[in-house]
Amino acid sequence: MSEPAPPTTEPSLDEIVALCKRRGFIFPSSEIYGGVGSTYDYGHYGVLLKNHVKAEWWRAMLAERDDIVALDSAIIQHPKVWEASGHLAGFTDPMVDCKTCKLRFRADQLEDSQCGRKPSKRPGEGPDCELTEAREFNLMFETSVGPVRDSASVAYLRPETAQGIFINFKNVLQFARKKPPFGIAQIGKSFRNEITTGNFIFRTREFEQMEMEFFVPPAEAERWHRHWMDERMRWYTELGIRPDHLRLREHDTDELSHYSSATSDIEYEFPMGFSELEGIANRGDFDLRQHAEHSGEKLEYFDQQSGERYVPYVIEPAAGVDRAVLAFLVDAYDTEEVEGRRRTVLRLHPQLAPVKVAVLPLVSKEGMPERAREVFDSLRRRIAAEYDEGGSIGKRYRRQDEIGTPWGVTVDGQTMADGTVTLRDRDSLEQVRVDAGELGELLAARLEEPWISPKAG
Amino acid sequence: MSEPAPPTTEPSLDEIVALCKRRGFIFPSSEIYGGVGSTYDYGHYGVLLKNHVKAEWWRAMLAERDDIVALDSAIIQHPKVWEASGHLAGFTDPMVDCKTCKLRFRADQLEDSQCGRKPSKRPGEGPDCELTEAREFNLMFETSVGPVRDSASVAYLRPETAQGIFINFKNVLQFARKKPPFGIAQIGKSFRNEITTGNFIFRTREFEQMEMEFFVPPAEAERWHRHWMDERMRWYTELGIRPDHLRLREHDTDELSHYSSATSDIEYEFPMGFSELEGIANRGDFDLRQHAEHSGEKLEYFDQQSGERYVPYVIEPAAGVDRAVLAFLVDAYDTEEVEGRRRTVLRLHPQLAPVKVAVLPLVSKEGMPERAREVFDSLRRRIAAEYDEGGSIGKRYRRQDEIGTPWGVTVDGQTMADGTVTLRDRDSLEQVRVDAGELGELLAARLEEPWISPKAG
Repeated sequence: MSEPAPPTTEPSLDEIVALCKRRGFIFPSSEIYGGVGSTYDYGHYGVLLKNHVKAEWWRAMLAERDDIVALDSAIIQHPKVWEASGHLAGFTDPMVDCKTCKLRFRADQLEDSQCGRKPSKRPGEGPDCELTEAREFNLMFETSVGPVRDSASVAYLRPETAQGIFINFKNVLQFARKKPPFGIAQIGKSFRNEITTGNFIFRTREFEQMEMEFFVPPAEAERWHRHWMDERMRWYTELGIRPDHLRLREHDTDELSHYSSATSDIEYEFPMGFSELEGIANRGDFDLRQHAEHSGEKLEYFDQQSGERYVPYVIEPAAGVDRAVLAFLVDAYDTEEVEGRRRTVLRLHPQLAPVKVAVLPLVSKEGMPERAREVFDSLRRRIAAEYDEGGSIGKRYRRQDEIGTPWGVTVDGQTMADGTVTLRDRDSLEQVRVDAGELGELLAARLEEPWISPKAG
Repeated sequence: MSEPAPPTTEPSLDEIVALCKRRGFIFPSSEIYGGVGSTYDYGHYGVLLKNHVKAEWWRAMLAERDDIVALDSAIIQHPKVWEASGHLAGFTDPMVDCKTCKLRFRADQLEDSQCGRKPSKRPGEGPDCELTEAREFNLMFETSVGPVRDSASVAYLRPETAQGIFINFKNVLQFARKKPPFGIAQIGKSFRNEITTGNFIFRTREFEQMEMEFFVPPAEAERWHRHWMDERMRWYTELGIRPDHLRLREHDTDELSHYSSATSDIEYEFPMGFSELEGIANRGDFDLRQHAEHSGEKLEYFDQQSGERYVPYVIEPAAGVDRAVLAFLVDAYDTEEVEGRRRTVLRLHPQLAPVKVAVLPLVSKEGMPERAREVFDSLRRRIAAEYDEGGSIGKRYRRQDEIGTPWGVTVDGQTMADGTVTLRDRDSLEQVRVDAGELGELLAARLEEPWISPKAG
């Protein structure tokens, strides 16, 4: 956990939340039943944005390298996994109860909590506060598998995807014919019964992770740790995050998780200050040794060339999908005055934008809708396109700006005469006339070009 | 549930399971701890295949139509959702216990069960059997949210993704500017504490669904029900499933779920017989009415043009990702005699194949590996490619055949002289010489062509 930095002049979290709701990116879950604390559903553009974030991660892990394979392990695994990993004994928060107001607090966050009866005071300082001793509360969600609920049927929802990778280390060695250094990458949901959630989708009980465990010879661990810090920083900046909004922060010794010998967080300057976006840990041989001990299986690598046998060290870049989505939204959010009007625009990297091109007839008559639909149909097979004919052209552009559509194509009177359309750029607002038949090729090429956020300038 | 048809001469489930393990598609979860019943992890090629199946579903739902939007709702929703949906009261199986052997059986499947002491008998027929009365056992996984475990903290893992769609009906009406007929599509995990699991990934407790709820004016429900049966059948056959392995089976009245007025299953001829691949239900207005009643929110549509106000009917094509993966694997599995040797080949649709092209140097010398890597690097940005130089060329081809790679490119002596490579077709085994520089264009075009399984003939 990092200390929040002072707020910036960037968008507030409220502005982001409002845009997400207004445009159907993300909204509170189970809202018709009054909602569930810190649980969100992704709407249409939110799903598309999130899918693009995940696709870019897969691309960086699989398509651009040869040393990583994919995995998708189960959410409900053998309970022994959590015994071996240390989660059953150690994945806890210390909690205290107030017997008077019946509220429960994290013992290590009393300073930042409010007394249930006198919110100006902190717990323990209110006149009637009666706090219990702190007791450890496990953050794993518990459930029961099978028809009988007893100690033998207890199971947990995974609190991280990483362990599913460690327990498959041997399978991958055997079937994917890999040898260290190599990695196993996974995207999937994890669950933590957090007491303190909040900051929109920054910390929720149900969340999606993108984790990769990179197995290396112990002597090379430090070098690979550095490599993955660089690679992951590059991933965010190449997808448009402004470098001055990112920082790499090394954990102090007393912050380190039980499994880690060194961790650096990539922090992003969220509206609530610099906070963890991704952790890059050197987990050493902790996990493989633990699982070897608890399972009785040998989890090691025998190098036939050198005759050496060793337990690989693990470098882990662990990112949150939802946090990445939030960072991309915050970084892209912009407002500006255009011709006397305020416009809100998401300056998303074109690869991340939910819709790449909007096709709009200038007016809903004179054959323009029909012609615009033809243009739309010619584009949609190559590139994610949206057709919109409802309302004034200005209103439709504002809508596309707010969902971050990088290009707008307008079919107007001149289109009917010479077959050209206007192509509008979301960021520069420049409009050029282009032959409708050349649009597909042109936009597909632009989509592949490197991109720098215009907010960076 | 359908009556299993007699087995065919097609691959046995064991052969599929063995291939999946051998090539790292799918293997038992938590294997180093002895496994967890009916839980599987997807390995590298399994993840790629599954991702392609999901991408094709999104393509059919979103890119090829204008009337469906995407959603990704939470797994742990408000408990009232399951009260309203009827799952809390009615999503149960009747169970009986045997007090003698301590086994538990589904009361409606006693005929097919074995007595715990005398397996040749069924429960109740063994000499010492003492069966209890049947009692209802809810199939939802229960957990507890927050630090205190009491009745107020009880929550459930969703048993279907559909309800997350119904409770967001109003949000989508409002923000996605849709009006009936329109659909909301979602892919995500669901959980059912099934007593009887089995047949590999056909029935597991944790599984992934692709569900779409299509909201229509009541008078149009039957027409849309037919439309979606046709569309979904087409989806499977266009992705290579042989039409004679599919059938549409209408549910009898006594089979219908509590919410459904008519359901037809798309059944696939799995190794264990024709079984449900996807259900296409007319859910009527059951769900929206239930949630309106329980939440107090109006869940209806007001048609401004006709002045009509109504609760839409819902047509639901509900598919299982894992079942679809299994069907594609079974349908693609083939063995044949080639030059006196048996080869196993997955004749997957190229769009579904985990790897589209393998690039292989004929031998690991004479500059061929370097030249092959150049060819590989030129291809990988356009198309999922794999480079392999280990072992004999025959062994490498057998490996690619087993993972279903449609094209193989070999760099040989002639490549070094004239820049051509051999392009091998997985199915016909035809080999042609092609200029290496033209491969990318050629394969990208082939990938877009319609495809018919060579097993269909």
